[in-house]
Amino acid sequence: MKALTYAGANKTPILKDIPKPEPQKASDAVVKVKYSTICGTDLHILKGDVPTVTEGRVLGHEGVGVVEAVGAGVTNFKEGDPVLISCISACGTCEYCKKGMNSHCTSGGWVLGNTIDGTQAEYVRIPNAENSLYKVPEGVDEKALVMLSDIFPTGFECGVLNGKVSPGGSVVIVGSGPVGLAALITSQFYSPSVIVVVDGDANRLEIAKSLGATHTATPDTALQVVKDATGGKGCDAVIEAVGIPETFHQCQELVAPGGVIANVGVHGVKADLHLENLWDKNIAITTRLVDTVTTPMLLKLLAARKLPAEKLITHNFKFEDMNKAYEVFGKAGENKALKMIIEMWPGLT
Amino acid sequence: MKALTYAGANKTPILKDIPKPEPQKASDAVVKVKYSTICGTDLHILKGDVPTVTEGRVLGHEGVGVVEAVGAGVTNFKEGDPVLISCISACGTCEYCKKGMNSHCTSGGWVLGNTIDGTQAEYVRIPNAENSLYKVPEGVDEKALVMLSDIFPTGFECGVLNGKVSPGGSVVIVGSGPVGLAALITSQFYSPSVIVVVDGDANRLEIAKSLGATHTATPDTALQVVKDATGGKGCDAVIEAVGIPETFHQCQELVAPGGVIANVGVHGVKADLHLENLWDKNIAITTRLVDTVTTPMLLKLLAARKLPAEKLITHNFKFEDMNKAYEVFGKAGENKALKMIIEMWPGLT
Repeated sequence: MKALTYAGANKTPILKDIPKPEPQKASDAVVKVKYSTICGTDLHILKGDVPTVTEGRVLGHEGVGVVEAVGAGVTNFKEGDPVLISCISACGTCEYCKKGMNSHCTSGGWVLGNTIDGTQAEYVRIPNAENSLYKVPEGVDEKALVMLSDIFPTGFECGVLNGKVSPGGSVVIVGSGPVGLAALITSQFYSPSVIVVVDGDANRLEIAKSLGATHTATPDTALQVVKDATGGKGCDAVIEAVGIPETFHQCQELVAPGGVIANVGVHGVKADLHLENLWDKNIAITTRLVDTVTTPMLLKLLAARKLPAEKLITHNFKFEDMNKAYEVFGKAGENKALKMIIEMWPGLT
Repeated sequence: MKALTYAGANKTPILKDIPKPEPQKASDAVVKVKYSTICGTDLHILKGDVPTVTEGRVLGHEGVGVVEAVGAGVTNFKEGDPVLISCISACGTCEYCKKGMNSHCTSGGWVLGNTIDGTQAEYVRIPNAENSLYKVPEGVDEKALVMLSDIFPTGFECGVLNGKVSPGGSVVIVGSGPVGLAALITSQFYSPSVIVVVDGDANRLEIAKSLGATHTATPDTALQVVKDATGGKGCDAVIEAVGIPETFHQCQELVAPGGVIANVGVHGVKADLHLENLWDKNIAITTRLVDTVTTPMLLKLLAARKLPAEKLITHNFKFEDMNKAYEVFGKAGENKALKMIIEMWPGLT
C-alpha cells in the first residue's frame, strides 16, 4: 500500500509502498482510510519537535474510513463498517481511562502517527479498536467528520470545557487556526455573551466573525478590546490556541479575576508565569491533551446538523499530491488554508 | 489607644498612641482586640513588598476580640459580643461576593492592615461588619481561634479545596510554615492516602509528622520521596506554600498527570512555567487569595474539637513587646516559631 513516511527532521516526507497492516492483537482493527487530513502537530513533527516519531513512521492521526479487518476480540465493529478514527487510542480499562483521561491510557493515548504507523496511508492498524473507532452516523458528511478525529474534541475539551465557558460569560480565544475556530464554534454550545477572537491574520478574523465571534482583535489591540467588552475585568475563559510564549503571556493579561486560562496550544519551550500579578487573582491555568471523551456527543451534534464542522475545510487534495498539501498547509496564512481533506482512494469526489 | 504602625520599608514599626477608631459607616463595627498575631504577609510588608501599605498604617489582619461599638446598620452584632475578625472584609452584595469570591469584594477584600488600619492595636474598625466578623462559639480556646482569621481558611481554601484533595488521593505540601501546616491538618478532612511534606527545616518536618504527614522530605529528596510514595506518578494535589520561584518550579516536577498545583504562597516575582513538559499532562494550576467562605465550617470543627489549631501556636507575647515578637517571628527557623499570640490587653494570661 502507499503511505507517507517521516524522513527525519526538516526533510520532505516520503510517499512510498509499505506492507499493508494486519491486526496484531485481538483488540486491533485495520481500517481502509477514505479521507485523512494534516494537523499542526504534523508540522511540528516534520520540524523534528516530536522526538518519539522516528524515521519511516507513517504520519497522521486523523481520518475516516471503512473497517477492513478486525481481531478476534473486536465485537462492536465488523468488516465494511464506516468509521471515524479517533486521534486517541484508549484501552478503556486502565486507571487513566477509568478517570476519563484516555489521553494518558497506559496502552494507548496519542500513538497514531507518533509511536505507531498513522492514517496518512491507504490502511491503518487501530489498537484498542472498540474505544478508538466510532461508527459513522447515518447521513453525515464524511469530510466534515474528519474534523472530529482531533480538532473538534481538542478545541472543545481542552478549551471550552477546561475554560468553564458558561451562559452569559466572556471568552477570548487567542489564535484562530483550526483548533481555535473549533473552540469558537463549540464555545457557543454554552451561550457566552462575549467571544473575542485574537489573531494577526485578517482573513482568519473574518472567518471568526462569520462563525460567531462577537469581537475580533489583533495581538496589539486585544487587551483594549477585551477590557472594553468586559467592563475592564478581563475574560472569564481565556483559550490559548497557539502554543508560543508570547501568546501565553498575553493570556495572563486577558484573564478576569476568578477566570481560567485554558491552554490548548502545543508548547515547545517554557513561558513566564507572572505569579507576582496572578497569585491573588483566583485564577486557574489548565493543560490537557485531548481525551476524545466527548466524541460521541460531537457526533450527535454533527448528525443533527448543529456542528458546522465542514466550514473549516478549505482545500481538497488527492493522496498522490500529499506533499503539495503539506506545502500549502505549511504556509496556511498566505494560502488562506484551514483544514485540508486528503482523498486516500482513487476516484473519490 | 496603642497601635503598631508601619514606618516605611526595612524600618522597625512604631508602637504609638493614636486616636481610638469609631464606626464611620452604618455597616461598621469597632472591636476591642483581645488577641492578635503576626502573619508572613506582615513580614513582606515590613520589607516594602506591599506598596498599598503606607507609612503610619496600623499593621495586622488577624485577631479575636469583643465588639465595642456598632454602626446603625449592624444588627447581627452588639456591644460585648466576643468575635473572630476575618482577614477578609466582604460586603456580601457585590458581583464577586455573590460568587463566593469575597477576596475580590469591590468594597472590601484584604483591607485590614493594608489599605485601612489593622488589628495590631487596642481597637480596630471593621467595615462590612456583618460579613467580616464571626461570633465566637461557646467553649472554644480564643487563642486557637486567632488561627481562623487567616491561616486555616488560607491553607484550606487555597490549598486543600483548590487542590481537590480527595479520599485515597496523594498530596504533597511544599513548605511547612503555619499555612502549609494548616493545609496539612485540613487536607485530612478528605482522607488522602499519602501526604508528603517538604521543607528544609528538620524541626518543622518533625511537627509535620506529628500532625499527620505520612512522609517528609527535604527539597533535595522530595522528587524521589514523592515518586516512591506514588508508584512514580507524582501527587494528585501539589500545594505550594512558600511563594518563591524555586518551590514553584519543584511543584511542576511533583504533580501527577491529571493533578493540580494549588498555589498558596505570596509571590513577589515571576516564575518559569515549563509548558513544554506540562501542555499534555492534563494538569491545573490555581491561584487564590483566601475568600474566608469556609470560616463558618472551620468554626464548627474548632468547636467540635476536631481542628487542632492550637498546635500551631509556639510563642506568647504582650502587646508592649510587639517588636520583640516580630524579631522572633522574622527568624522563625532558628526560634522554632510558628504562630505567636499577642495579648493586646494588660492582665491576660
